[in-house]
Amino acid sequence: MKKNEARYLELIEKALVEMLPEPSPLSPDAKVKSAMRYSLLCGGKRVRPMLTLAFCELCGGRVQDAIPFACAVEMVHTYSLIHDDLPCMDNDDLRRGKPTNHKVYGEAAALLAGDGLLTKAFEAALSASLPSDATAKAALILSSLAGDEGMVGGQCIDLETEGKETDLSVLQAMDSKKTGALISAACQMGCVAAGADEEQLQAADEYAQNIGMAFQIRDDVLDVLGTSEKLGKNVGVDEKNQKRNYVSLLGIEESQRLVERYTDQAVKALGRFSREGEFLTDFARSLAVRER
Amino acid sequence: MKKNEARYLELIEKALVEMLPEPSPLSPDAKVKSAMRYSLLCGGKRVRPMLTLAFCELCGGRVQDAIPFACAVEMVHTYSLIHDDLPCMDNDDLRRGKPTNHKVYGEAAALLAGDGLLTKAFEAALSASLPSDATAKAALILSSLAGDEGMVGGQCIDLETEGKETDLSVLQAMDSKKTGALISAACQMGCVAAGADEEQLQAADEYAQNIGMAFQIRDDVLDVLGTSEKLGKNVGVDEKNQKRNYVSLLGIEESQRLVERYTDQAVKALGRFSREGEFLTDFARSLAVRER
Repeated sequence: MKKNEARYLELIEKALVEMLPEPSPLSPDAKVKSAMRYSLLCGGKRVRPMLTLAFCELCGGRVQDAIPFACAVEMVHTYSLIHDDLPCMDNDDLRRGKPTNHKVYGEAAALLAGDGLLTKAFEAALSASLPSDATAKAALILSSLAGDEGMVGGQCIDLETEGKETDLSVLQAMDSKKTGALISAACQMGCVAAGADEEQLQAADEYAQNIGMAFQIRDDVLDVLGTSEKLGKNVGVDEKNQKRNYVSLLGIEESQRLVERYTDQAVKALGRFSREGEFLTDFARSLAVRER
Repeated sequence: MKKNEARYLELIEKALVEMLPEPSPLSPDAKVKSAMRYSLLCGGKRVRPMLTLAFCELCGGRVQDAIPFACAVEMVHTYSLIHDDLPCMDNDDLRRGKPTNHKVYGEAAALLAGDGLLTKAFEAALSASLPSDATAKAALILSSLAGDEGMVGGQCIDLETEGKETDLSVLQAMDSKKTGALISAACQMGCVAAGADEEQLQAADEYAQNIGMAFQIRDDVLDVLGTSEKLGKNVGVDEKNQKRNYVSLLGIEESQRLVERYTDQAVKALGRFSREGEFLTDFARSLAVRER
C-alpha cells in the first residue's frame, strides 16, 4: 500500500458516511437516500478523492480542508456510474461485484439517486470551511469539468461513436472529457483547498489529464485481459456493445506502452511543485499496472 | 401582463440563450448540447427565474446581479422535467405542446441532457459577478433545496406513493419538497443577489412555500378541468397513473379554496419587506386562477 493511502481512505470513508446518514425507514423519501448510500458507500477505489487530498497536501494545505471537495468529486463519480449503468445507457447489471443500483432499487429510484448525488456534490463542496472565494472557485471548477464541456460531453461522444468507425483522435478527445475532466477537477480542487496559485492548478491539470488517459487505456486493456471476478464487473463489455477502444485500434501491447508514456508525463508534471509528491508518483505508477 | 413581466422575460430569455450557445454541428458532443437547448429554450413560463429577479428588486438589488441565479434555477427546473418525462418515470411524450426530450433525442441523450443542465445550473450560479460569499451562499441554497432533502426527495415521495392510499399530510409534505423547495430557492437566491438579511430570506421562503402549494393544487385542478390544447401537455395524467392528488382527496371546489388560502398567506409574507411587491402580489394572485 502506498504511503498515506490508508490514512486518506479512512478520512474519505468516514466523511462520506457522515454526509449521507442512514435515513429513518419511516421517512417517505427513505428510498432515494438508501439508493444514494448503496452506491456511494459500497467500497469504490476512491481514486478521485484520494487525489484531492494528496494535491492539497502537495500544495502545503491541511488535508481536513480538502475533505468536502474530495467527497464532492466522489459523489459526482458515483452518480455518473449509476446513470451509466441504466438500461438506456450501458445496461449493466454488475458493478464493483454487486448488482447495479437500478437492479436493486428500480430504474426510477436509480435515476433520482444519481440526480440526488450530483446535487449533493455541490452541497458538499459549498459546505467547506474555507474562505468563500476558495469554496466558490472549487465548486466552479467541479461544475465546469463535470458538465457538457467535460464529463457529460465525453459521455455524449461515447454514445455517438458507438458502433461507428472511430479514430484515435476522437477516442482521445472522448476520454479526455469522459475520464480526464473529473480527475482534473479532483486534483485542482485539492490545490484550491490549499490556496494554490494558477501555475499549480495547471500542473495538477496536466498530471490529471495524463493519468486519466493512462487509466482509461488500462481499463480497455483490463476489459480484454481481466476476469469478471477480479474486476467486480462484467468484462468484454466494449466488444459486446461494439465500442471502439484503444485495444481494438492499437492492440494490447501498443496500448500498454501508451499507458506507460502517459504515466511518465504525469510524473513529470509533479516536478513543478516544490514539495515531493511521493504518493502521487506511486499512485500514477500503480495505476499503470493495476489489475482491477 | 403584470408590470415588469415583459422586462423580466426578455432578460431571462436573452441570458439563457447566451449561456447555451448553439453547438457546431461537427462537434462530437453536439447532440447533448442540442438536447439541453431543446428543453431549456422551448418557451417555458419562466415562473421561477422571474421570482428570482422580482425578489432581487424587492430587496433593493440590481436585477442584472440576479440573472445568473435566475438561469440556474430554470436549468434545475428544466432538468427535472426532462428526467420526469422519461419512460422509467412518468413516461410522457408531450411537454409544452412539443414532443418530450427523449422522444426527440432518445433516452440516453435525454438522460445526459438532464445531467448536463443540472451541472450547468451550478456553473451559472457560481459565475455570478457578485462577492464570492453571496455567490457561494446562493449556490448552497440551490443545492440544498434541489437535492434529496428538497426537490429530489419530493420526487421520491411521489414515486413511493403512486397507486397507494395517501393522506393530505403526505401530499403536502411531498409538494412542499417537490414544488415548494425549488421555488423557495428561486426566491431566496434573488434576495441573496441583493445582499438581503436572514429575516428577508425567511419571508421569501414563506412566500415561496405558499405559492408552491397553491401552484401544485392549481395544477391538479387543471389536470382535471383543463384541455390538452390549452395546457400543451396531456391531461388526466394523474388519474391514468393512479396518483392521488388534491382533487381526488378534497374535490375541485375545496381544492380551489385551498389555492386561495395559500395565495393569501403568500401575499401576507410580502408585507415583511420594506418595498412594495406589486409584481409578486399580482403574480401570486394570477397563479391562483391560471388556465395553463
